[in-house]
Amino acid sequence: MEELWTENLRKITPYVPGEQSNDKNIVKLNANENPYPPSPKAVEVMKSFDCNNLRFYPNANASRLKEAIAEYYNVGVENVFVGNGSDDVIAIAFQALFNSDKPIAYPDLTYSFYPVWCSLFGIPYKNYPVDDDFRINPEDYREENGGVVIPNPNAPTSIGEGLDFVEKLMEYNQDSIVIIDEAYVDFGGVSSVPLTKKYENLLVTATFSKSRSLAGLRLGFAIGSERLISVMEAVKNSYNSYTVDTLAIEMGRASILDDEYFKATCQKVIATRDRVTAQMRSLGFKVLDSSTNFIFATKDDLSMKDMFEYLKEKKVFIRYFSLDRIDNYVRISIGTDEEMDIFLKEVRGYLEK
Amino acid sequence: MEELWTENLRKITPYVPGEQSNDKNIVKLNANENPYPPSPKAVEVMKSFDCNNLRFYPNANASRLKEAIAEYYNVGVENVFVGNGSDDVIAIAFQALFNSDKPIAYPDLTYSFYPVWCSLFGIPYKNYPVDDDFRINPEDYREENGGVVIPNPNAPTSIGEGLDFVEKLMEYNQDSIVIIDEAYVDFGGVSSVPLTKKYENLLVTATFSKSRSLAGLRLGFAIGSERLISVMEAVKNSYNSYTVDTLAIEMGRASILDDEYFKATCQKVIATRDRVTAQMRSLGFKVLDSSTNFIFATKDDLSMKDMFEYLKEKKVFIRYFSLDRIDNYVRISIGTDEEMDIFLKEVRGYLEK
Repeated sequence: MEELWTENLRKITPYVPGEQSNDKNIVKLNANENPYPPSPKAVEVMKSFDCNNLRFYPNANASRLKEAIAEYYNVGVENVFVGNGSDDVIAIAFQALFNSDKPIAYPDLTYSFYPVWCSLFGIPYKNYPVDDDFRINPEDYREENGGVVIPNPNAPTSIGEGLDFVEKLMEYNQDSIVIIDEAYVDFGGVSSVPLTKKYENLLVTATFSKSRSLAGLRLGFAIGSERLISVMEAVKNSYNSYTVDTLAIEMGRASILDDEYFKATCQKVIATRDRVTAQMRSLGFKVLDSSTNFIFATKDDLSMKDMFEYLKEKKVFIRYFSLDRIDNYVRISIGTDEEMDIFLKEVRGYLEK
Repeated sequence: MEELWTENLRKITPYVPGEQSNDKNIVKLNANENPYPPSPKAVEVMKSFDCNNLRFYPNANASRLKEAIAEYYNVGVENVFVGNGSDDVIAIAFQALFNSDKPIAYPDLTYSFYPVWCSLFGIPYKNYPVDDDFRINPEDYREENGGVVIPNPNAPTSIGEGLDFVEKLMEYNQDSIVIIDEAYVDFGGVSSVPLTKKYENLLVTATFSKSRSLAGLRLGFAIGSERLISVMEAVKNSYNSYTVDTLAIEMGRASILDDEYFKATCQKVIATRDRVTAQMRSLGFKVLDSSTNFIFATKDDLSMKDMFEYLKEKKVFIRYFSLDRIDNYVRISIGTDEEMDIFLKEVRGYLEK
């Protein structure tokens, strides 16, 4: 018989993080990581860092990082929230901003963590199917809801929408809070950050993991009205006052300040993406128009699952989702030109089988 | 009139983190930080770290860190949980292990975050007063409860209890889960980690922030049965799969493996603490017997609040709590011998005023 203390354990379905590989010889195009290193300015911060400082707690407000982000986006420090990766930031936003008995609204094809957080925090939700072209219809979000969360660009579809789309969302949702998740925006999307000055109920979240090549450092942030940010700060300070470590504060700051390197890196990824997209299309693939650092592709007469497994054998790792509506698509992160040439060579090999 | 969307904001009292100072000229004895730098082996990890690795996500299981902790404490890797500071670890433990309608039990004088987490997660709680000597009476914890959390040594009292005390707690609490918070144990306390093999419902939490001089890096851990740890992992992976960054995994590992430096540092703090305790007593202070890296002191005929403010003027920062029962005590973190000599000089100056 089970002991009585086990009744106090949380009933929860374990969420298993995606597959990881330590093999340095693989071409790793499965986690939307950046193929280029972080800013040399950020690297220099680490190399010259005085480790004696680590014996002190970090600044609980991560002020030097917030100041750099605020200046970069032309907002106030009081409009910036920072956290331990954008998952931490969005999880805190859900707890702080989605407190309603009505379901929150998001697309059926989107970031897989939204339903996980809803389950963890007991937030009801409702999915709205994207259309046959995988576009999000803003009219769906006229329905009464307890909040809205939409990635723009969306993942795994890679499709970005313009500010007219977000303006419509805000028009339809004057009574709830809208989160726009901009994890991928720097690769050709349009940021809604300027709209946070117009709409006090709009929160934009972002990350250092993709465009700033710092997935391993864990840094995310959000920008919104002081009203939204202050409630997020209250939740964060009631959970863990020191989520962002001292080195991450300084490296993140250096990364933000090095705009030249940032823009050059993003442009390289975009150029490679556009080249790979054209080549895939010339091979007969349907590739959605991407505003991200990955592409989402299919081929009518082929099994994408089979191609995914073939590529894995060849040590080229891409992502396949065994999910309704997209179970014959693959998601391919954009690597260096050299990596993508290997990818394309193996795809051609697969087609010629 | 308030807009309707504001109704979806979480109602929460902002928790304000403790005062911090950037002034490098102060003697900082107010946050229980370690006066000595982190292990040179951990510093070397940072200096030789290949920043290109930061473009990848960390290992979601922090395996290399868990392996080092498991080996050090002679437990299995499946018995180890790691997180972004021990606040993150304990917050996850509360969510994972305290799911009961009955109140959880802890002392009235203890870590100030326990009621904050209870409020955030909606966990009922009941306080049991420590006795007039600030000792925790294990008999109090015979009362039916939804869980028990006790720091050993306790803070801010500095008093450590032996394994007989923890064995009694376990005997009285066979139907609930007991968390022993060992943030300060390395400075002369007795660890309950060996008891986690005997009691499947016992969790021990610990931190790299005090004895390992890495408060700025954010690393905490817990040791317990696979049953407890697996539920904590499920909660953690439903919140943020990558709480511990790649550098922290490697620096934490190096710190754990450098046992010689660790023991020498702890011994220096203990020796200084015992010297300061003796001198304070010779000045007429009552100083509790400390098993931590701080002392808790009072003097009957003096206002500790006034002394705290006097020392602050003199740039010696200690901690004063305006709380019932301890509002004429001060908490003094143990610094270097040089820092403590300055502290003692200023205390003598105050007494001679």
